[in-house]
Amino acid sequence: MDMLFDAVAKRGPVCVGLDTSPACLPPERGRYGSDADAAAAFNRVIIDATRDIAACYKVQIACYEALGIDGLRCYSKTLAYLREQKLLVIADIKRGDIADTAKQYAAAHFSGDFEADFVTLSPYMGMDSIEPWLEWAVSRGKGAFVLMRTSNRGMRDFEYLELAPKPEEDSRRVYDAVGEKLAALAASHCGTRGYGAFGAVVGVNPSPYEREEAARLRARFDGLFFLVPGYGAQGGTALDAAMLLREGNGGVVNASRSILTAWKKEDNADFERAALAARKAAEEMRGALQQAVKN
Amino acid sequence: MDMLFDAVAKRGPVCVGLDTSPACLPPERGRYGSDADAAAAFNRVIIDATRDIAACYKVQIACYEALGIDGLRCYSKTLAYLREQKLLVIADIKRGDIADTAKQYAAAHFSGDFEADFVTLSPYMGMDSIEPWLEWAVSRGKGAFVLMRTSNRGMRDFEYLELAPKPEEDSRRVYDAVGEKLAALAASHCGTRGYGAFGAVVGVNPSPYEREEAARLRARFDGLFFLVPGYGAQGGTALDAAMLLREGNGGVVNASRSILTAWKKEDNADFERAALAARKAAEEMRGALQQAVKN
Repeated sequence: MDMLFDAVAKRGPVCVGLDTSPACLPPERGRYGSDADAAAAFNRVIIDATRDIAACYKVQIACYEALGIDGLRCYSKTLAYLREQKLLVIADIKRGDIADTAKQYAAAHFSGDFEADFVTLSPYMGMDSIEPWLEWAVSRGKGAFVLMRTSNRGMRDFEYLELAPKPEEDSRRVYDAVGEKLAALAASHCGTRGYGAFGAVVGVNPSPYEREEAARLRARFDGLFFLVPGYGAQGGTALDAAMLLREGNGGVVNASRSILTAWKKEDNADFERAALAARKAAEEMRGALQQAVKN
Repeated sequence: MDMLFDAVAKRGPVCVGLDTSPACLPPERGRYGSDADAAAAFNRVIIDATRDIAACYKVQIACYEALGIDGLRCYSKTLAYLREQKLLVIADIKRGDIADTAKQYAAAHFSGDFEADFVTLSPYMGMDSIEPWLEWAVSRGKGAFVLMRTSNRGMRDFEYLELAPKPEEDSRRVYDAVGEKLAALAASHCGTRGYGAFGAVVGVNPSPYEREEAARLRARFDGLFFLVPGYGAQGGTALDAAMLLREGNGGVVNASRSILTAWKKEDNADFERAALAARKAAEEMRGALQQAVKN
């Protein structure tokens, strides 16, 4: 997590989400052999246009799985390009399975065709589904973000459920229990910048009540680096997101559609103009976050 | 879920798990161009040898993702072979993401290169991560099994947490809350055999305490078809598993390693002898389950 901290210190907390489904591509995509080829080429121009603004990139594997084997070849190409360029990449895969299976997944996503620097994980099955990934953090400097409190409407179904209180303890929710286990893991694998190899996914939810909660979460889980979804197209503001950072670091804020499809506001955009529009959107987002951090 | 009910009625409740990592393959694998090619060929002989004993097959995608693009090509081939043969297949993918992403995943795993009949899903992010898959149940007869109470040690970390009691209500755990939401969904999408299109993953855990719990779960969630992991190599007995069925139906019991690697008890097994050993292991398992159902 040290590398990501340093990238945020240098370039700000924007994470560019490459959720490149065919609907995100300008009409020029028709020039390519397939949607997957077009997506790989589009990702490349977006990366080139935003590399001095983005702390890191997040690649949503579902958009590529939907295109089958061809899509996963494009996914692999995009990861390889990012890693060749020494840019940091989070594979948004939200895997979570028993230990033996987690080992297979970790090999899949921390080496070979699909090698990424970070992954996202789902905690439902418990810590033995998380721990096998940690060996890679130790041996290869990899990291992970575990779902804790997400930004979607459905988060209230299970993440938000209130737990039976223990004596002399404040009320806790399911996501608090996840955070506590992650904090213990982070404390035992803490980097030189004060964050554990495994951070948490904590989304922005624009409501006054949830701002208080965000402040509480940020203060309580100070050893967890946050991956923050929900900004932009999903409704979160710069102020909501800034509350989940610590003086502008300690987290990255992801935006996908608002950057990738910024070209839709223009007439007749091709890949080149889409890249410029993406750059402008990422710059504005970074400016808004930095302004919000100051306030 | 009607098709799966009928398959269990006809052939018994065994689900053969094709978690075909290279370590499962007999030495003959060296004759193939790659581990992925060997795995695809091995899956085929295992399927041919067990098709009149197995209710269905479960393919653990992690074992294939670990071999990169080649592995996923093998995964795709195995799914295609099963579907050509009109055999039912569960893609064990445990996906769980926001609604827009869930739509992409559903397209990925219910059509195209990775088309399966059923998938496994993770509920952590809530019901809006589950519901998009349901459209495919209605339009294409697909189904899903959502993680509820799994069979691994870590299940106690979050699935088992006790929830704050509501007035006049028995104590409930996180997995009860998941089961309740699934039961409501199942009631609104119930097939002609009495089960919803979406069932639950409920694992066997061999302890007397958990047998009581299994009986309670089976009685309470009678509209949910169960996918039961944990049998065999993971320690669950036929009696534990039978308690999660309803008169021998209403669920399938998965075994992977104990079937795939039954050849390891023999000397010099090749693919053909491995297939016979797998058949014998599957037959014994079916016999043990049918015996346990009677008791």
